[in-house]
Amino acid sequence: MNRIITISRELGSGGRELGKRLAEALDIAYYDKEIVEALAQKSGLAEEYLEGISEKRISFYYPITYSNSFSLEPIRYQNNIMAQQNEIIKELAEKSDCVIVGRAADVILADYHPLRIFVYAEMAARIERCRRRDHGHERTDWEYKKFIKATDRNRSHYRDLIGDREWGNPLTCDLMVNTTNISIKSIIPGLVAYQEGYFQSLK
Amino acid sequence: MNRIITISRELGSGGRELGKRLAEALDIAYYDKEIVEALAQKSGLAEEYLEGISEKRISFYYPITYSNSFSLEPIRYQNNIMAQQNEIIKELAEKSDCVIVGRAADVILADYHPLRIFVYAEMAARIERCRRRDHGHERTDWEYKKFIKATDRNRSHYRDLIGDREWGNPLTCDLMVNTTNISIKSIIPGLVAYQEGYFQSLK
Repeated sequence: MNRIITISRELGSGGRELGKRLAEALDIAYYDKEIVEALAQKSGLAEEYLEGISEKRISFYYPITYSNSFSLEPIRYQNNIMAQQNEIIKELAEKSDCVIVGRAADVILADYHPLRIFVYAEMAARIERCRRRDHGHERTDWEYKKFIKATDRNRSHYRDLIGDREWGNPLTCDLMVNTTNISIKSIIPGLVAYQEGYFQSLK
Repeated sequence: MNRIITISRELGSGGRELGKRLAEALDIAYYDKEIVEALAQKSGLAEEYLEGISEKRISFYYPITYSNSFSLEPIRYQNNIMAQQNEIIKELAEKSDCVIVGRAADVILADYHPLRIFVYAEMAARIERCRRRDHGHERTDWEYKKFIKATDRNRSHYRDLIGDREWGNPLTCDLMVNTTNISIKSIIPGLVAYQEGYFQSLK
């Protein structure tokens, strides 16, 4: 069975950077936006539209032409997109060893016994990381905090839809990494060694 | 400044084994019961008596001759023992690099910027580990569960006494290790590499 490493992350914790660097160090596939691209091809929907699906409440993304608050259509529509995304994630996991960021891949790929890493940080560090990323378009602390909390809420909501597990609950993770005080780069050799021992022990 | 690694752990998660193996691999000091021994020497109290102080509610340990539920004596007495223990922990941290298990050392040594590892596992795995340890004196699942939950509660209570931080809250840990599916031995090389990068990055 392929070695799958899933990364769940709080916005602004550096989880994406961690996933990318870890995949590079291990020389294995890295999937993040690639999943959205594949989904766009499969579903015929725009990437920009699909991108937010695991980040925002799906109802926001429901095409306006179908809008009817008493209809079950939005839920069916949403389930259909999610089912397609899950299928793509399983296809990727079948292909080769890989790192998958977000999209509840740890739950979807439970049968593959992935190493489930959760990346988190203190609020001040998360704000700082978001600000660095927005270089030239910085917002206030208050605006970042509001945005971060809303994203946390929506990711957690997406998790509720996909399975019965609680986002960020330690028992649904194998390793939780606090990036508040450190550079992501510095801990990659440690994670490379950790996953090696982890997968050997799992056999 | 010395490199300090603190291990907080759930009962039955293998945190003590992890701490011991990590200290061995790094060839640095390991403190666990040694703290109790030093405390016994310092306070003149019996080791058996002191051993439970960070595991059980301190009032249980208050000598019966002082017992008076309307008196503040037990609290003063308890604070005195805790202060002595904290002093010993700081002395050990000053001496050399070390791994310290339990006793809220991560809070007491906050100024030393320790790598704070939290070790945890699913209930079934914790019961199983306790049972292996009790070889020949096994108890029922229900008894283990009750004992584990009581110990969790008391450790958490001890944390409340020592500082304002919440036991097992990810934001009070730097790395959280779920030992449910793996052997402790297998992840030691990963932790050795992780702490190396962590302390380098912290500088």
